[in-house]
Amino acid sequence: MPRSPVITLTTDFGLQDHFIGTMKGVILQQVPDAQIIDISHAVQPFDVFDGALTIAQAYSYFPSATIHVVVVDPGVGTARRPIVVSTEKYRFVAPDNGVLSLVYDREERLRAYHATAEHYFLRPVSNTFHGRDIFAPIASFLAKGVESSSMGDEVTDFVRFSAPRPKAVDARTLRGVVLKVDRFGNLITNITPQDVPSVFAENAASFKIVIGKREISDLKSSYADGAPGEVFGILGSMGYLEIAANRGSASKLTEATKGTDVNIVLEGSAAVGS
Amino acid sequence: MPRSPVITLTTDFGLQDHFIGTMKGVILQQVPDAQIIDISHAVQPFDVFDGALTIAQAYSYFPSATIHVVVVDPGVGTARRPIVVSTEKYRFVAPDNGVLSLVYDREERLRAYHATAEHYFLRPVSNTFHGRDIFAPIASFLAKGVESSSMGDEVTDFVRFSAPRPKAVDARTLRGVVLKVDRFGNLITNITPQDVPSVFAENAASFKIVIGKREISDLKSSYADGAPGEVFGILGSMGYLEIAANRGSASKLTEATKGTDVNIVLEGSAAVGS
Amino acid sequence: MPRSPVITLTTDFGLQDHFIGTMKGVILQQVPDAQIIDISHAVQPFDVFDGALTIAQAYSYFPSATIHVVVVDPGVGTARRPIVVSTEKYRFVAPDNGVLSLVYDREERLRAYHATAEHYFLRPVSNTFHGRDIFAPIASFLAKGVESSSMGDEVTDFVRFSAPRPKAVDARTLRGVVLKVDRFGNLITNITPQDVPSVFAENAASFKIVIGKREISDLKSSYADGAPGEVFGILGSMGYLEIAANRGSASKLTEATKGTDVNIVLEGSAAVGS
Repeated sequence: MPRSPVITLTTDFGLQDHFIGTMKGVILQQVPDAQIIDISHAVQPFDVFDGALTIAQAYSYFPSATIHVVVVDPGVGTARRPIVVSTEKYRFVAPDNGVLSLVYDREERLRAYHATAEHYFLRPVSNTFHGRDIFAPIASFLAKGVESSSMGDEVTDFVRFSAPRPKAVDARTLRGVVLKVDRFGNLITNITPQDVPSVFAENAASFKIVIGKREISDLKSSYADGAPGEVFGILGSMGYLEIAANRGSASKLTEATKGTDVNIVLEGSAAVGS
Repeated sequence: MPRSPVITLTTDFGLQDHFIGTMKGVILQQVPDAQIIDISHAVQPFDVFDGALTIAQAYSYFPSATIHVVVVDPGVGTARRPIVVSTEKYRFVAPDNGVLSLVYDREERLRAYHATAEHYFLRPVSNTFHGRDIFAPIASFLAKGVESSSMGDEVTDFVRFSAPRPKAVDARTLRGVVLKVDRFGNLITNITPQDVPSVFAENAASFKIVIGKREISDLKSSYADGAPGEVFGILGSMGYLEIAANRGSASKLTEATKGTDVNIVLEGSAAVGS
Repeated sequence: MPRSPVITLTTDFGLQDHFIGTMKGVILQQVPDAQIIDISHAVQPFDVFDGALTIAQAYSYFPSATIHVVVVDPGVGTARRPIVVSTEKYRFVAPDNGVLSLVYDREERLRAYHATAEHYFLRPVSNTFHGRDIFAPIASFLAKGVESSSMGDEVTDFVRFSAPRPKAVDARTLRGVVLKVDRFGNLITNITPQDVPSVFAENAASFKIVIGKREISDLKSSYADGAPGEVFGILGSMGYLEIAANRGSASKLTEATKGTDVNIVLEGSAAVGS
């Protein structure tokens, strides 16, 4: 018995309307046995980068051959292209607006196709809901065995933006930024152990992390190691430095949010990048 | 291999409690391979019309033979009837309080049955959670092959209300209403191109749309065509006029919400209905 | 054809991040045909008792052999144990912090195992997301047929707390507490008919229920029996006394919330416990 195809959905559509249910109905018309999995529909409205981050955090945990549909699409109804991107293990269906940028960063080999094969679309195509009329149908036909290349011509000029990278402000200071605040109020930064190895080492150099008006001087290895009201650093599950609190919201405690600067200042003899 | 039965759920139960998970457990007891799809559980509490609108927007996108369960049920535990409605392609399970009214409007042939066959219910039946005790079990037995007519006697006096229709206020003015505000703040009205063909025509007549203190003088063909902060009209994916903004909330910008009047005033020689 | 395994998820992870989607991906890697059902992800953050209540309300409605994963885990990354608990019909996977306490109360025979078989875990195991790295993988291997006892040694000292029980304040007064406020604003108390049979009897004794500044003098048999703005008692679908309102929020009307005291004062000759 062949395995049921897995199709994931990541959007900024929310769950208060009929949108996601409708897309699933469209998929089931073609692939009755699909495993349709929601990654998240709470991507911030119109925020392509937030969508890019969400799919990047999740996609590699899915079985080989999973089809990932990502719809954060402020340009719906304009000339922006629908694309299909195939990587070694997965295929992605999305508007060509950069929402797959962090996937491109992580994948060595990929091919992208401009989906123009309208006979796979739901007709008539509306100008406001391509999740239903274009992206869900494309995913369903891919799941049925249609080749990515049958969706349209290969393209290499797909839209790709760079995630913000931490920067050395001076020899002792690295400046990163909060990428996202999660449900618990943890602040996910763009700083990784590779950026400041001395901070994450066994015998870490002295340092302070400055965020808002707070100064943090150590990393914890679990949330529960923090004292009540304490804000601390921790290596999060995606490999990024998080600013966190034990049973509390670091976002509230620091008054920091998405976009807030995070400075790591090294003390003693260590220097940024060493 | 027979296809897995598809059962959809549309309720005002929200997702913060165990309600929806419990209903799914009840369904899986009878139909282990069911495809159970959430349309939305964010119907406004006790708002039968909002439920009617939600299921109407989604149901026709599902495969033939899908069973749609719709539970917005302020009368739970009273004498209001549970009903099963069969149409050419689908079956619906719901309280008989009008929540299927917009389905009735769209379907030519339908039969309704008063579900009284208590041996299909979960016993004892509570007075407060018929989603679990009556509606989910009925859906599961329908999915197993039980006929709609086995659930009880056919009825023709099912509850049906009319959706509010736009009205001509004078020869030049059509007054509609906002039916719903979606996740993005788009205002979905009850006005369709059939109501004012001259506005939606290729060479549209001059007109203005008045909503709150805003006057709108043109329709866009995509959200992205709007300038920042601009509020405009657009033909939405369900065929209704929407009041929208590009990457912003038309609801906030106009201070309009569900129930707000929308007036279309024709200029020049055109008249309402022409 | 063997039935698809059912795996449920109950967490405090919310739906705004990628967490739940990622856990489902991990499960599908091992069990492509799993029926993965969300019970709720809106357990109050870090609130183990709220998690205990949520799973207790739902688990018994699922088919035999369902695997229930419950992750409310403020101690993630510390020495708190991951456990597998098997009962007559189900298996549970959770941190050993009492989140299964109300399951223990309801089940006569159960066995608990400290899950230490790291070869079933996702490697490397993070310190902050055991839902992905430990609990989802364990569930998937149980679903594949691995025995609970293969996960680690049996333990009997698992963490178990008692749900708050109503207390007799004097011969005429029983004091309970609000356990939870549901989506509609109904106040679910910890008082059952067994605690005050005379109140729930056919010919109920005179009584009043005091909550906040409100006094309630009767029980209704359905929500719709209440007058507009009236607050009343009702036997809820889980067997607890609820304080409710018809098409309104009892929580708003009484200004009561989780943790608020609820006093039942008997009048005439009845006494608490009789």
